[in-house]
Amino acid sequence: MTTILTGASGFIGAGVAKVLQARGDDVVVIGRTPIKGLGFRPLDLLHDDPRPLLHALAPSRLVHLAWNPDRATLWNGVENLAWVAATLKLVLAFQEVGGVRAVVAGSSAEYDWSYELLDELATPLRPHSGYGIAKRAIYEMLSNTPALAPLSIGWARIFFPFGPHDKPDRLLSQVVDGVAAGLPVALSSGRQVRPFIHVDDAAAALVGLLDSAVEGPVNIALDETISVRDLTLIAAAQAGDAALLHFGDRPLQAGEPQVMRAAVTRLTNEVGFRPKYSIREGVVAAVAARRGRMAGEASYEQVR
Amino acid sequence: MTTILTGASGFIGAGVAKVLQARGDDVVVIGRTPIKGLGFRPLDLLHDDPRPLLHALAPSRLVHLAWNPDRATLWNGVENLAWVAATLKLVLAFQEVGGVRAVVAGSSAEYDWSYELLDELATPLRPHSGYGIAKRAIYEMLSNTPALAPLSIGWARIFFPFGPHDKPDRLLSQVVDGVAAGLPVALSSGRQVRPFIHVDDAAAALVGLLDSAVEGPVNIALDETISVRDLTLIAAAQAGDAALLHFGDRPLQAGEPQVMRAAVTRLTNEVGFRPKYSIREGVVAAVAARRGRMAGEASYEQVR
Repeated sequence: MTTILTGASGFIGAGVAKVLQARGDDVVVIGRTPIKGLGFRPLDLLHDDPRPLLHALAPSRLVHLAWNPDRATLWNGVENLAWVAATLKLVLAFQEVGGVRAVVAGSSAEYDWSYELLDELATPLRPHSGYGIAKRAIYEMLSNTPALAPLSIGWARIFFPFGPHDKPDRLLSQVVDGVAAGLPVALSSGRQVRPFIHVDDAAAALVGLLDSAVEGPVNIALDETISVRDLTLIAAAQAGDAALLHFGDRPLQAGEPQVMRAAVTRLTNEVGFRPKYSIREGVVAAVAARRGRMAGEASYEQVR
Repeated sequence: MTTILTGASGFIGAGVAKVLQARGDDVVVIGRTPIKGLGFRPLDLLHDDPRPLLHALAPSRLVHLAWNPDRATLWNGVENLAWVAATLKLVLAFQEVGGVRAVVAGSSAEYDWSYELLDELATPLRPHSGYGIAKRAIYEMLSNTPALAPLSIGWARIFFPFGPHDKPDRLLSQVVDGVAAGLPVALSSGRQVRPFIHVDDAAAALVGLLDSAVEGPVNIALDETISVRDLTLIAAAQAGDAALLHFGDRPLQAGEPQVMRAAVTRLTNEVGFRPKYSIREGVVAAVAARRGRMAGEASYEQVR
């Protein structure tokens, strides 16, 4: 039973690849970048017709996480349109070759963020960005096309993952790398409250959703929130001196809501997912892993 | 200045092709079917990458009308997803090669049909079909991606066109062909009131929109409505014996609203379009043209 995975070199995709690999699934990564230890077939998702490859692979499962990796154009670039097209073509090709079960990445950005509690079936979908509009468009088409049956699709609305392998420009990386180097770190007020989730838990939840038969939207999130201030203070204290954090030195991004919580009833009760980490535990683990990695890289540099 | 046209062999597309051809525009039809007298380049919009062809043509204008021609799958088939992907890829390729002005076909099916007056900017978009959801999805992505600039896009929400070249399974054709043959024609109650428009006027309005700089949604419709009963009675009386129409022998389709009107302020005031026909005049002209065509075909059959 072959599972194809896109976005495997991305932040969450790398976690999913690890989980599937660890349990010995027959996984073929498709896209531009191979992953060590997994099957790989090159495909330009944006421009190649995916049908010949999918006919050859005859996969029964699909995890589609790939999206525009460029953060400068992520929120409002024309690239969102291209990724909508790529996603629809991939799902159609997967359905055409008899694919049975798919998990496709949606986003918390599909919701109307003026609501505090973001519930899959109760909260209106009023995205505030081109990215959110693109994800919602795919969701609405997939969930309103009964003719896709018997293909079963879980739509994963992923919330705020963090982890040791975050890119350097992301919150946790900036804090850990900055503080560890003894440098001051400029932050917003940090009062925003979010359901952050350790990337390993997000990846495990996605695999749980894949293994389940749950259809439609499922929040990939913890039933817990933390303020950016508290999260970064925990991380900074562990990485060095928390006094290096300068809250209020950066503005909030326009449209950023104060509080955001995710309903997790579907993930907990229907998918049956149990997280490994609380947010605090997850931050501690992620900082330790990142510092270990940094130390490893430093020694490597020294040896060389 | 090259204009590319998709859907040129379709009902409205044929009308647009005729208008553009008549005034000598440099038109290249792209798709599966050439049109006599116009440039043609074959392209499988659903599966080919449109970029090489568009790079070669370097068009400045685009009229994109192509969509799934199969009425059995039009409303809720998986084909809608494929056409969304094809449309987005085409618009992106057109933008990439420096396209200046595009008109893309939307639909009256994007609107919430529980409202009587369907106004581009005031009426909620709550489609009742997969087709409507697909068109709305494209609309929302195109209209929320400022990065597409300087490409200017008019979004044509087309309402109920009729004409002499309607396919045989469509309302006017069934009535005219049936009554002309002396056969009874089974119809619904015919109480539905709609802003029908002669296809020549719809085509002229689309070309007017193309020539204008009006961006965003524009209803392609008349400021006039007629009941299905009155429309078919006019047509039948002209084609033969109106007593052959049997109203109430067919059910209304589920979800069909009683009354539908289209706001035409944008088309009239901003595009500056003036229709050639009232609905009654249009029906009379269409029936005469269809009967002329039928007579022509009959003589041709006899000669052969």
